[in-house]
Amino acid sequence: MAKEITPRSEDYSQWYLDIVHKARMADNSPVRGCMVIKPHGFAVWEKMRDALDAMFKETGHVNAYFPLFIPKSFLSKEAAHVEGFAKECAVVTHYRLKNDPNGAGVVVDPEAKLEEELIVRPTSETIIWHTYRDWIQSYRDLPILINQWANVVRWEMRTRPFLRTAEFLWQEGHTAHASAEEAMEETLRILDIYARFAEEYMAMPVIKGIKTPNERFAGADETFCIEALMQDGKALQAGTSHFLGQNFAKAFDVLFLNKDNQQEHVWATSWGVSTRLVGGLIMTHSDDDGLVLPPKLAPVQVVIVPIPKPAPALTEVAEKIAAQLRAKGVSVKIDNDDQNRPGFKFAEYEMIGVPVRLGLGQRDLDAGQVEVARRDTKEKSNVPFDGIADYVASLLDEIQTNLFNRAKTYRDEHITKVDTWAELEEVLENKGGFAYAHWDGTTETELEIKERTKATIRCIPIDGEKEPGKCILTGKPSERRVLFARAY
Amino acid sequence: MAKEITPRSEDYSQWYLDIVHKARMADNSPVRGCMVIKPHGFAVWEKMRDALDAMFKETGHVNAYFPLFIPKSFLSKEAAHVEGFAKECAVVTHYRLKNDPNGAGVVVDPEAKLEEELIVRPTSETIIWHTYRDWIQSYRDLPILINQWANVVRWEMRTRPFLRTAEFLWQEGHTAHASAEEAMEETLRILDIYARFAEEYMAMPVIKGIKTPNERFAGADETFCIEALMQDGKALQAGTSHFLGQNFAKAFDVLFLNKDNQQEHVWATSWGVSTRLVGGLIMTHSDDDGLVLPPKLAPVQVVIVPIPKPAPALTEVAEKIAAQLRAKGVSVKIDNDDQNRPGFKFAEYEMIGVPVRLGLGQRDLDAGQVEVARRDTKEKSNVPFDGIADYVASLLDEIQTNLFNRAKTYRDEHITKVDTWAELEEVLENKGGFAYAHWDGTTETELEIKERTKATIRCIPIDGEKEPGKCILTGKPSERRVLFARAY
Repeated sequence: MAKEITPRSEDYSQWYLDIVHKARMADNSPVRGCMVIKPHGFAVWEKMRDALDAMFKETGHVNAYFPLFIPKSFLSKEAAHVEGFAKECAVVTHYRLKNDPNGAGVVVDPEAKLEEELIVRPTSETIIWHTYRDWIQSYRDLPILINQWANVVRWEMRTRPFLRTAEFLWQEGHTAHASAEEAMEETLRILDIYARFAEEYMAMPVIKGIKTPNERFAGADETFCIEALMQDGKALQAGTSHFLGQNFAKAFDVLFLNKDNQQEHVWATSWGVSTRLVGGLIMTHSDDDGLVLPPKLAPVQVVIVPIPKPAPALTEVAEKIAAQLRAKGVSVKIDNDDQNRPGFKFAEYEMIGVPVRLGLGQRDLDAGQVEVARRDTKEKSNVPFDGIADYVASLLDEIQTNLFNRAKTYRDEHITKVDTWAELEEVLENKGGFAYAHWDGTTETELEIKERTKATIRCIPIDGEKEPGKCILTGKPSERRVLFARAY
Repeated sequence: MAKEITPRSEDYSQWYLDIVHKARMADNSPVRGCMVIKPHGFAVWEKMRDALDAMFKETGHVNAYFPLFIPKSFLSKEAAHVEGFAKECAVVTHYRLKNDPNGAGVVVDPEAKLEEELIVRPTSETIIWHTYRDWIQSYRDLPILINQWANVVRWEMRTRPFLRTAEFLWQEGHTAHASAEEAMEETLRILDIYARFAEEYMAMPVIKGIKTPNERFAGADETFCIEALMQDGKALQAGTSHFLGQNFAKAFDVLFLNKDNQQEHVWATSWGVSTRLVGGLIMTHSDDDGLVLPPKLAPVQVVIVPIPKPAPALTEVAEKIAAQLRAKGVSVKIDNDDQNRPGFKFAEYEMIGVPVRLGLGQRDLDAGQVEVARRDTKEKSNVPFDGIADYVASLLDEIQTNLFNRAKTYRDEHITKVDTWAELEEVLENKGGFAYAHWDGTTETELEIKERTKATIRCIPIDGEKEPGKCILTGKPSERRVLFARAY
């Protein structure tokens, strides 16, 4: 099975699609640009969702649910927002079908035309701020810290499973505050949560940064992001947190009485991560044999394979080991299939990314040991039954750490300071990764660099140092370097 | 605040709307028939979802996600299904907006018309069975036990929050099997899970039954349901589990090679419960002072209110009690608000249905006790600090049991055996509840009874006895009684 995967060196893009399909993460669907998330892919997303949801709740956020549909006129209310989102949308124009009078199935009933078209939400700021107007009167009603787990639709022309799909699943936080300072704190608190989640759970190192005005969310005063680096040297925007200022409050007329008894527009943030993260996870760790999953997000962390096939004596020991592991909170599957051979099974579990495989045959039983294979390095070792649960539990931690370190080493090696145009082109064309260069701060320059290199400014790193220099294109003065890269 | 609720005796329908709004469960939205599920309402739904999800997973089901959109032609493939679902649907006809050349916001771009319209899923059998065709070749690929948590849209004309909304949240299970027997077992397994969930978590007694052919799901060979009874004597269909036979496999050409090496159409089930359950929960237990929640589904099970307001000595004891309760898995909130008075707070916590309230003043502190108030009966008692956590934990169990018993007593008192038309009318018009009567088994009779009484056959109870009799309308022979009621 593994042999069917196109090697990364040959065609990275095809390798990604092969992993998605052969590791049973997702399938294409009959609806253009929409995917079917298969059980294995969905189980990974569920683990991501649960971890993030707990982090949101720990910081005082609650979940709610707003309508799928947005009246068309809402999109026009915030001037910048309409430019960004009132474009490629799914538009509902009718609310009824009827039998085709000519007998050819069903047709749209022309009598059932909506007075105002409804847009399938591409993001929910407009309908939520319309609602907040009713919820907010005074500073006592603030802050509102709401998150929503939902599906959204953006009619993308070029799609790729998880990374860019017409419909995707995400969470969108929408908070309302009594001051700019508090809203900015919230924006950064969420950015930190996203970075912590990416690094601690996904084992995916990220750079926290600020987007340039050109890359800002439509309707935001400031957009913050986490940027990751994939194995082909392309960057991936993995999450964004927006300081929306008072833009949506002004567009939807949301005022509150502040402590000084004055009417003031409410301050806002919004922030989201999506099933795109599953794509980032795949591309960060996987190899030519299949998916590699960090243990914290693996639906099954350990599989026990009786060799050559299930037998009562083997199953008895397998059950004992499984019970010890489960007592430590490890998720374990015992392979009870008696049709396929161990070699086939090993390849299969490597394909779907189970972090640790335990092989257990009669000879192991006699020797009082089990063969432990780790997915990340493919190393195998024989470990005595005594203390096996402790060994495996700490091995899972080690795999989690190793995956992060491996990805971080790659990422760090692919941040290159460049000071000349030739160096910039060299990095983008050949080495890949981030080019860390000076930029004069204008959108004009940013767009010209994009035009000439296909690279965008991924972000201005928050933790970057101030360092005077000259713009790599125009030679004009610059206060600090920014990260350029080609990106997904 | 509680005073603003319309009493049930005055206007049950308005009472329900008052509870929904004043207990902060949901709000109306600017989109016709769609609601905003507010944080408190969503927290209840989350608890329902988590409990059900665990029950599905324990029985071998996995989650996945299929597209929101269904190509129009898919709906026509199963003959009965198209009659049931290709009616009031949200139809996507275009995929782009553009700026209005006349400057009036945005308009639908006529150039961006879809070749085939897309329907926002009213249910997902068609797109899922289209997908299963690629997943199933042999009996080794079966069973497939997939569930999906999703939003669906049915363009209802008369809506009511939670009970009937254009968009709602639900889970839909779609399973594929190698034999009719296995599919029927699955159908009934899920029915049992639904009944167990309704009774054990929602404290809502239900009757398991079979729907008449007229009330069957469009495309099913047999529909099973759980039926509950609301406080106004109207029935509520709370969940359905369908044995789909081979209908969808035939419509979508899904064949498998069975163990005898023969091609056979796959057997199917589908089943679902929705946010409608939240409406059922509200109507089963709540009273004229607000929401009443069974402890197992209450987002906050215990609130501790310092009296008359927070003070260090009170907070210290409150924290200790909270810690003891949390150690037992009880969710606790300590009220730290120092603006409102205890009376206001008590009414507020009654309104939102917190099962147990602990009042703690200086006099309680001196006496080494706390005032315990239960929401279900409004009884109060003074309980010593010593052993308070055990007391409250067992009180929560008692409230859960009491709510179920109270609802069951009401329900049982409202199942009335009737043998004459006059008795049937009397029950339906005055007493309310289920009329348990003989029916001749024809759709014609069923529809005439509905026409004359507004009552439908809710189900043929699975646990009902066979008992020969005469149809209440036609006098024709009947083998068993069925349950008639007016319903939501």
